Amino acid sequence: MNWQNYLDDQQAKFVEDLLDFIRIPSVSAAKEHFDDVVRAGNWVVCRLQQAGITNARMMETASHPIVYGDWLQAGHDKPTVLIYGHFDVQPADPLDLWDSPPFDPIVVDGTVRGRGASDDKGGMLIPILAAEALLTSEGKLPVNVKFFFEGQEEIGSPTLKAFITDNSNLLKADVIFSADGGQWSEDQPSMTIGLKGLVGCELTVNGANSDQHSGMQGGGIANPIHVLSHIIASMKDVNGDIKVTGFYDDVVELSVHDRQSIAKVPFDEDAYIEELGVPDVFGETGFTTRERLWARPTLELNGIWGGYQGEGTKTVLPASAHAKITCRLVANQDPEQIYLLLKRHIKENTPRGVTADISRLPGSADPFLLPSGHNSSQIAAEVLNEVYGKVPYNVRTGGSIPVMSMLLQELGVHATVFSFGLDDEKIHAPNEFFRLSSFRRGQEAYCRLLNKLG
Amino acid sequence: MNWQNYLDDQQAKFVEDLLDFIRIPSVSAAKEHFDDVVRAGNWVVCRLQQAGITNARMMETASHPIVYGDWLQAGHDKPTVLIYGHFDVQPADPLDLWDSPPFDPIVVDGTVRGRGASDDKGGMLIPILAAEALLTSEGKLPVNVKFFFEGQEEIGSPTLKAFITDNSNLLKADVIFSADGGQWSEDQPSMTIGLKGLVGCELTVNGANSDQHSGMQGGGIANPIHVLSHIIASMKDVNGDIKVTGFYDDVVELSVHDRQSIAKVPFDEDAYIEELGVPDVFGETGFTTRERLWARPTLELNGIWGGYQGEGTKTVLPASAHAKITCRLVANQDPEQIYLLLKRHIKENTPRGVTADISRLPGSADPFLLPSGHNSSQIAAEVLNEVYGKVPYNVRTGGSIPVMSMLLQELGVHATVFSFGLDDEKIHAPNEFFRLSSFRRGQEAYCRLLNKLG
Repeated sequence: MNWQNYLDDQQAKFVEDLLDFIRIPSVSAAKEHFDDVVRAGNWVVCRLQQAGITNARMMETASHPIVYGDWLQAGHDKPTVLIYGHFDVQPADPLDLWDSPPFDPIVVDGTVRGRGASDDKGGMLIPILAAEALLTSEGKLPVNVKFFFEGQEEIGSPTLKAFITDNSNLLKADVIFSADGGQWSEDQPSMTIGLKGLVGCELTVNGANSDQHSGMQGGGIANPIHVLSHIIASMKDVNGDIKVTGFYDDVVELSVHDRQSIAKVPFDEDAYIEELGVPDVFGETGFTTRERLWARPTLELNGIWGGYQGEGTKTVLPASAHAKITCRLVANQDPEQIYLLLKRHIKENTPRGVTADISRLPGSADPFLLPSGHNSSQIAAEVLNEVYGKVPYNVRTGGSIPVMSMLLQELGVHATVFSFGLDDEKIHAPNEFFRLSSFRRGQEAYCRLLNKLG
Repeated sequence: MNWQNYLDDQQAKFVEDLLDFIRIPSVSAAKEHFDDVVRAGNWVVCRLQQAGITNARMMETASHPIVYGDWLQAGHDKPTVLIYGHFDVQPADPLDLWDSPPFDPIVVDGTVRGRGASDDKGGMLIPILAAEALLTSEGKLPVNVKFFFEGQEEIGSPTLKAFITDNSNLLKADVIFSADGGQWSEDQPSMTIGLKGLVGCELTVNGANSDQHSGMQGGGIANPIHVLSHIIASMKDVNGDIKVTGFYDDVVELSVHDRQSIAKVPFDEDAYIEELGVPDVFGETGFTTRERLWARPTLELNGIWGGYQGEGTKTVLPASAHAKITCRLVANQDPEQIYLLLKRHIKENTPRGVTADISRLPGSADPFLLPSGHNSSQIAAEVLNEVYGKVPYNVRTGGSIPVMSMLLQELGVHATVFSFGLDDEKIHAPNEFFRLSSFRRGQEAYCRLLNKLG
């Protein structure tokens, strides 16, 4: 049986495997799910061994574990390929907006629906299954392969860099592929040449030492929610321009060539507006929507809370108010420097009557931009051309994969995204799903990729 | 046994009664506690009957019930006194800031700690116990008395006005006293001559049709938390001046005499700052802190929420964000008119890319200002002078008691606040408490008041 037939033959079982994998609520952001992240790691180790990657094991980091597995019997003349993915997932709330339970996945309309289906459990399972198909049908792999899966991607991989530094020999490879990322559409492939960096903070405003009666103390003291709103408003104006002093200083401005290259990729703004259900697009002045999404830094509020959120009225003047903020960065912004700028901005924009400060949220990432003419990316592009019958678009993404810049810094290799999720699959949102057609096509693509590299 | 001895004799039992009363979590703001509000009403009916007010019953309104009881055997030549209070309480959250469970009250350091201890279960129980003491010791009351207790004060008494209109004959009285309110301090009495009005709204900003990935869509569409912050910031500037067009138009400016009268009442701003634990006072420019607290309208944020509020990072660009706002009003602002101004302001200050609107929160109150030379207030002041040995201060409060203006409009009588809570008793906040000394002194004061009126 050749690998194509093996994939056909096993597909129903592979889907059951994916459902099994999604059932583990491996939410890295929540302490109470730490054990589930470990369980998911164990599941991956077992699945690697079942695939024939017998040298597979879980390894500790300073926080969430990683899974490593390798097959290195292709010989010294063959390249060593590192394949990356992650087995942790985003939190599932708000739960009441899911049409089916996030951790009780179902197959519906040719898709698997559940938290992590697309990001990244479906994605990271693909290369394991491809390796299984090649090992089963041919008894060997055409290249040396290392699998490297983490359990902390969704919180920004806070302790991964130290792990990579400590294990750089183990992870050493000639080429690196990320099974986290995506394609353009069901019939159009794409190569991801740029990713944004990330830095996050939690902003807290403290007023009185306890909640007060808003009638009794209103007008006497500052309201932390009011101050928090003013600080947030001061960070980005109503036109969408970020007003934190120095924020844009290190941004490499887009060249005419960059802007032409971005404009070459089709973008239907009306369809975008309709898909998201917004009245209009919005963002920094002087750039197209696609330029803002792909190649301009952002400052976004991820959450805000303070005072009474229940039904009806509670006339409280709260003691404190809070917000979570993450910035997406582009070359050459530095997460550490941006955090300092945010801290200074808040210090300079806090009115009297309260105290305000930020604390660092876990995780950060440098921005990532692929150099043109990068070797493994050209091979990946050829495979995508074969599988889809079309030349891939060169795209960027507003998302961050911190490990991409870590691997570059520690191993000296620019990773290439080779993954099969699509933009509409509601990752990080209720009703996340993954197409079974992408799941199947990804397996074929990885088999071809490994063969071509061999 | 005279009434003084009866009060001494029964005090331990009265405290047990108060603890019993507080154990009923009669939170009017929460639907799930509706039955508890009814239970609290039943408790009041039984306690009235036990006190000798045998004609006591619960009556329905369009929402939460009221309790009515009367004793009208003093004769036609004696005045009829209506005594008001409320048996509903504020929500208890944030629960984790309570040192003991809010609905499992305890006696500690000469106080009763629990939700509603001061506002207003302790307060409204006082006149019932005073009536019991007079009825038991003398077999009759010196005046005709009507008790009128509501179960919706903490949500702004949304359906009370209709009830009062429909039952104006039943409630008809010569003088009215409110057992909701407070005194200046443990050894200084006060007369409340002004109360603020109230109007509230919930502000909602909607962006995309579901939560989005803040990396994928950040920079492409507006962030509802960001817009909400801008709208809130536009309503009140960093100096504390309200910027809603027309908001101050109907305010009766303070006269020189008003300002002198307010300045006569001692106010230690440093102690105020220290007590609340704030770095500084804050509010509208051009007025003293006390003027702002007592006699200037306010716009306060009671709550805000949107996006992810859990531990760690969730890189979501939320679909919506929300805030609860209440304004305290002074003569002659009209709640209906202020609501329309808020609605217009939000319409005019919403940037592109989202929709925003407000909805009315339950409850509203007209501002209330006692005319000088008011008869029953003078008698009350005399009683306070006897009990405390000091002339009461004339004070105002930032709080609202909607029923005060309703009773004025429907029954034509200016109610007089005659109650014994103190400002530091953490009403509407964690660890609310009521002093047992105030509880006892209030009973004596009500006995004296009824005797003097007779």
